[in-house]
Amino acid sequence: MTRKRCAVVGATGIAGQQFLVALDGHPWFEVTRLAASERSAGKTYADAIRDEKSGARRWWCVEPPPARMLDLSVENGEGLDLDGIDVVFSAVESDAARVLQPRYAKTTAVLSTASAFRYEDDVPIMVPGVNHGHAALIDRQRKLRGWSGFVVPLPNCTTMGLVVTLKPLLDRFGIERVIMTSMQGVSGAGRSPGVMALDIFDNVIPYIPGEEEKVARETGKILGLMGADGVAPTTFPVSATCTRAAVTEGHTEAVTVSLGRRATPRDVEAAFREFDGGLSGLPSAPRRLITVHDDPFRPQPRLDRDADGGMTTSVGRVREDDALDHGIKYVLVSHNTKMGAAKGAVLTAEYLLTTGYIK
Amino acid sequence: MTRKRCAVVGATGIAGQQFLVALDGHPWFEVTRLAASERSAGKTYADAIRDEKSGARRWWCVEPPPARMLDLSVENGEGLDLDGIDVVFSAVESDAARVLQPRYAKTTAVLSTASAFRYEDDVPIMVPGVNHGHAALIDRQRKLRGWSGFVVPLPNCTTMGLVVTLKPLLDRFGIERVIMTSMQGVSGAGRSPGVMALDIFDNVIPYIPGEEEKVARETGKILGLMGADGVAPTTFPVSATCTRAAVTEGHTEAVTVSLGRRATPRDVEAAFREFDGGLSGLPSAPRRLITVHDDPFRPQPRLDRDADGGMTTSVGRVREDDALDHGIKYVLVSHNTKMGAAKGAVLTAEYLLTTGYIK
Amino acid sequence: MTRKRCAVVGATGIAGQQFLVALDGHPWFEVTRLAASERSAGKTYADAIRDEKSGARRWWCVEPPPARMLDLSVENGEGLDLDGIDVVFSAVESDAARVLQPRYAKTTAVLSTASAFRYEDDVPIMVPGVNHGHAALIDRQRKLRGWSGFVVPLPNCTTMGLVVTLKPLLDRFGIERVIMTSMQGVSGAGRSPGVMALDIFDNVIPYIPGEEEKVARETGKILGLMGADGVAPTTFPVSATCTRAAVTEGHTEAVTVSLGRRATPRDVEAAFREFDGGLSGLPSAPRRLITVHDDPFRPQPRLDRDADGGMTTSVGRVREDDALDHGIKYVLVSHNTKMGAAKGAVLTAEYLLTTGYIK
Amino acid sequence: MTRKRCAVVGATGIAGQQFLVALDGHPWFEVTRLAASERSAGKTYADAIRDEKSGARRWWCVEPPPARMLDLSVENGEGLDLDGIDVVFSAVESDAARVLQPRYAKTTAVLSTASAFRYEDDVPIMVPGVNHGHAALIDRQRKLRGWSGFVVPLPNCTTMGLVVTLKPLLDRFGIERVIMTSMQGVSGAGRSPGVMALDIFDNVIPYIPGEEEKVARETGKILGLMGADGVAPTTFPVSATCTRAAVTEGHTEAVTVSLGRRATPRDVEAAFREFDGGLSGLPSAPRRLITVHDDPFRPQPRLDRDADGGMTTSVGRVREDDALDHGIKYVLVSHNTKMGAAKGAVLTAEYLLTTGYIK
Repeated sequence: MTRKRCAVVGATGIAGQQFLVALDGHPWFEVTRLAASERSAGKTYADAIRDEKSGARRWWCVEPPPARMLDLSVENGEGLDLDGIDVVFSAVESDAARVLQPRYAKTTAVLSTASAFRYEDDVPIMVPGVNHGHAALIDRQRKLRGWSGFVVPLPNCTTMGLVVTLKPLLDRFGIERVIMTSMQGVSGAGRSPGVMALDIFDNVIPYIPGEEEKVARETGKILGLMGADGVAPTTFPVSATCTRAAVTEGHTEAVTVSLGRRATPRDVEAAFREFDGGLSGLPSAPRRLITVHDDPFRPQPRLDRDADGGMTTSVGRVREDDALDHGIKYVLVSHNTKMGAAKGAVLTAEYLLTTGYIK
Repeated sequence: MTRKRCAVVGATGIAGQQFLVALDGHPWFEVTRLAASERSAGKTYADAIRDEKSGARRWWCVEPPPARMLDLSVENGEGLDLDGIDVVFSAVESDAARVLQPRYAKTTAVLSTASAFRYEDDVPIMVPGVNHGHAALIDRQRKLRGWSGFVVPLPNCTTMGLVVTLKPLLDRFGIERVIMTSMQGVSGAGRSPGVMALDIFDNVIPYIPGEEEKVARETGKILGLMGADGVAPTTFPVSATCTRAAVTEGHTEAVTVSLGRRATPRDVEAAFREFDGGLSGLPSAPRRLITVHDDPFRPQPRLDRDADGGMTTSVGRVREDDALDHGIKYVLVSHNTKMGAAKGAVLTAEYLLTTGYIK
Repeated sequence: MTRKRCAVVGATGIAGQQFLVALDGHPWFEVTRLAASERSAGKTYADAIRDEKSGARRWWCVEPPPARMLDLSVENGEGLDLDGIDVVFSAVESDAARVLQPRYAKTTAVLSTASAFRYEDDVPIMVPGVNHGHAALIDRQRKLRGWSGFVVPLPNCTTMGLVVTLKPLLDRFGIERVIMTSMQGVSGAGRSPGVMALDIFDNVIPYIPGEEEKVARETGKILGLMGADGVAPTTFPVSATCTRAAVTEGHTEAVTVSLGRRATPRDVEAAFREFDGGLSGLPSAPRRLITVHDDPFRPQPRLDRDADGGMTTSVGRVREDDALDHGIKYVLVSHNTKMGAAKGAVLTAEYLLTTGYIK
Repeated sequence: MTRKRCAVVGATGIAGQQFLVALDGHPWFEVTRLAASERSAGKTYADAIRDEKSGARRWWCVEPPPARMLDLSVENGEGLDLDGIDVVFSAVESDAARVLQPRYAKTTAVLSTASAFRYEDDVPIMVPGVNHGHAALIDRQRKLRGWSGFVVPLPNCTTMGLVVTLKPLLDRFGIERVIMTSMQGVSGAGRSPGVMALDIFDNVIPYIPGEEEKVARETGKILGLMGADGVAPTTFPVSATCTRAAVTEGHTEAVTVSLGRRATPRDVEAAFREFDGGLSGLPSAPRRLITVHDDPFRPQPRLDRDADGGMTTSVGRVREDDALDHGIKYVLVSHNTKMGAAKGAVLTAEYLLTTGYIK
């Protein structure tokens, strides 16, 4: 198979860098174009990520920048020519996404980490292994908007681990209500200006603007039923408290669920273990979407975020919650910049390639 | 007034050190005796907290050790003679507490940070400002056990902030159920061996053995009604997920409460603000038991733990929770080693002195 | 005494906030005017430090903002009218300082934390207790520039602890060479954009642009001899390696000095202990400029930065260094945003008030 | 080739665990026996590392325990039978090493991370790529002690990065004196009781007992000349200040060297880059012993410790130091528990196998 040619837009920011890492050496996709803001246009990528004042390389991934990228010329995302490009991976923020992505989508498949189009009726929030059926919204989107490409956003990184673990519970037991408290890594806010060290050292910040609303809304849409008229969101309430913790990467979430019927912790663990998203064969897919820990001290973000390439959701401490009817509680860790962002978008693209939405 | 003479038992550990700091310069209490394990007996306090191998001072409070203490001789807690002592502040762990405290209580008032006697029917878990009526259990305890002193334990440090904030809600609105996720500072586990840096840097540990059960049980007892037959615990369920965060001091808790009747976030804030524990005049009491923040980014442990001498519970982000009937959620920060341990015990002793239980 | 009326310029940034805290309740100085950039002009201070998007208060000191300040109107520093102002405390960065401070200095005393004028021949870098004689440069400055006010900058925060400890060594033993490695807190870079958490968690950053050169140059000037023609810098080399550590506040420095003649560690400790800067009576002065620790595990930034109001330099581990002739090495901790910035500038202003330079 | 059979002694501690990870899937060595203290003897390894009270697995590596190890029975290191064992990797502390290792060495090759035998005249402190010639001391050791095995210790983890970088400088330019300040990760003290989080959060600890003396002494021996009478240590002074930083793994060192003759930073970088330890073909060897960074913000422990499997020493900020004759300074990062401990010992064993000392 010839590899699909990809452009990464917003390539100089932290999310864009994660795309470059996620796509490095990918068997199906090849990054051939880079775009960013006007300020970077015309520079090599190596120059574009070099701080002029200090000479430092502005690169935030632990993995080094792929050598091939350093000499690529960065284009202006505003006027990006998509000739010869099969897929656009877009890492720009929401305001820019709202402007740029419709232009790209006229001709090309666009996978996006921004929230811009998540809540539009004809746009699926794709989560690999969870809501493949929603891909059909792409057809509707194309028809309505007259695009031959499309825009498919990923969910918010905090939504990701939650929906991956709720899906098998919803399917097997039903869900009446969800209460969740997150302790999120700082890389999720890594884009300008990010979390200042002085604000988070020796601290917990109990508020992330807009995050709780996103989690509630996206969970309902992702787990909703695809029908003739689009996706009907689930109606069970999702109440989130989203906090920032002194952690580099990995989101930890304490989840309490009121199930639709009685289930023991063992039943729930079995549902987690047996959850098969139908992703086998996709290069970025984890062996298991959910990894269950018996050790009550797990999952921990530092030890578990990178499990299975950062693509599995680690779960532990499954136990009864006597404060709710059919209450079950557990703790999960999900890698917010792998499964929860760039690498999750790449996995989605892999799925859309095998199903023909990307050609 | 002549100051009451106090012994601090377990004086060399972190909780004991916090007692020395909390009692330094106290207008009503004076530390005149120190006790610890056999290993320290016979040494001056300065020598007892010096590591023999490295010569380092093993002292964990930010405040330096009170100069007067350094020359005091440390006695063996096993055979401590209480002649001339009015109050024992006990910072030993539960196993030792179970053995030593009954000996001391025969003649002397014992305030304890250990869990040893918390769940006995004739022992009140005293929380200053919250359950003064439970002090009457001391009479029952003395009668049943033939003691002229008594044992009064503090609650677990994680229970503390929770019951302080639930009390005004229970009184004004009633409570149907409570779900809480804590992000606890490492100093709460400061006693040997404490939390290792390698375990908690860049991490969250999702389990603290025994903590969740303590929170549920103690909350029920502390908020229970004192009757002729003792305390009848409340019956609403308290479901806790207790995690350890990369924070030195201060416990953060995300609390969701299903109230007995509808109340707006403003009603709840008013209840918090108007909560008056009747502690005025006690030297260690905060101006307000609860401090309400409007800034949605507060409370934060680093910024708020030391408010009002570490004795107020800081609350913020009060908002509706649509996942529960009459649901309200909020975030609190409580100082685990001030209000939640030694200084809270000193405040309790102040209260018991004004009410004649300590003479 | 009537309190001198002060303006704080750059009041909304982290250094400006530290001025407000340092001047809160000051017996000699009273903040009556606040200035910042055009963006803040016309707002109350409370509004100026509120993030518009999130509603959060942008305030970085552990101490809360002084209540009186919140209602003050913020003026535009560009056109600040100094009528009725006795002292300007300037917390703006160097580029702005170069433009604004000469305007202010025409009529008014300006104390500055910026590096802008530090290296000009007629400008003293004042360090309270170390180089009082350099104040005479103010006369020269006024004459040369035709100002009735003046500009006096503080040294870089990393220079501060170093010169405070080198001064008594230079006076008593002479100095041949200095090698220093710093481990600096993040608040020193607190101004926009500051150190990102993702960059410094679980990490050491081995480079702070420009810092090492500043330390070398400023040390030479501050310790230089005041003569008829100005300050003759010292000629011994100062070699610094400046690193950023995962510490909120407090700069730790490992210093190696080749002395002019042999001295034992005890001799050096005596020189430190007996160092009297002649600051008694100044409200912000520490009891001792240098505090010597015997415990080999001290000084530590978390335990020692706030000693004596953050104004003493804590020193420990004084020992011989056999790699240099008459070699001595020690470790120091200095509070970079108290003695090393705003509060140090206030102390300097106190000194200049008692000597008549501020009227 | 049949794989050599290995025993890991002290297998339950953090250093022992690192041996199990370093040897997992090794092409030349196979762990067939595990030993620890009496407390663990007779248990499976899975049980031996399970905390009885909490049920938690006491495992400190980010890599999970090799599955094969979990079922192995742990023997008592005191009476360990070495029948069928070719190599002992010993991770016990010095006191135990002094007793146990001579017993093992009677028949078997012993590689050790303890300091116990480092300073004995007939014992080489082996550093792969740096002092291969010292292996000849093994012959002397065998003869003098009547052993058919041997004891070869690794240097202290802080010495490791230093000697790797000093070696090419010594060979090419000569060395007159060395001054070094380290900022060490907490895992180096990971053995009981390790560094408590409460001690190191938001902090620097300026003292590590015994460390500075070890660095000076070991550096002299390792870089010394092997002669007919053993190793003659180098005579240039090595002055170290060893501090503990808030870093999980990786030691950062700021090094100042007075060279024997003038050399530019470019000359020094060339010496680093061209340093070839003759390790090609050894499975655990890095591609380069030293990796030189141009970016002045590197090396950083979080980004560089794992480079080349944690086996390369990363160097940056090479520049002149005008405080010393022919002064050069640089910053290095070395992985203290890979190259600086277990994996470094495995690399040494690989070398000794290829040279016939291990058979």
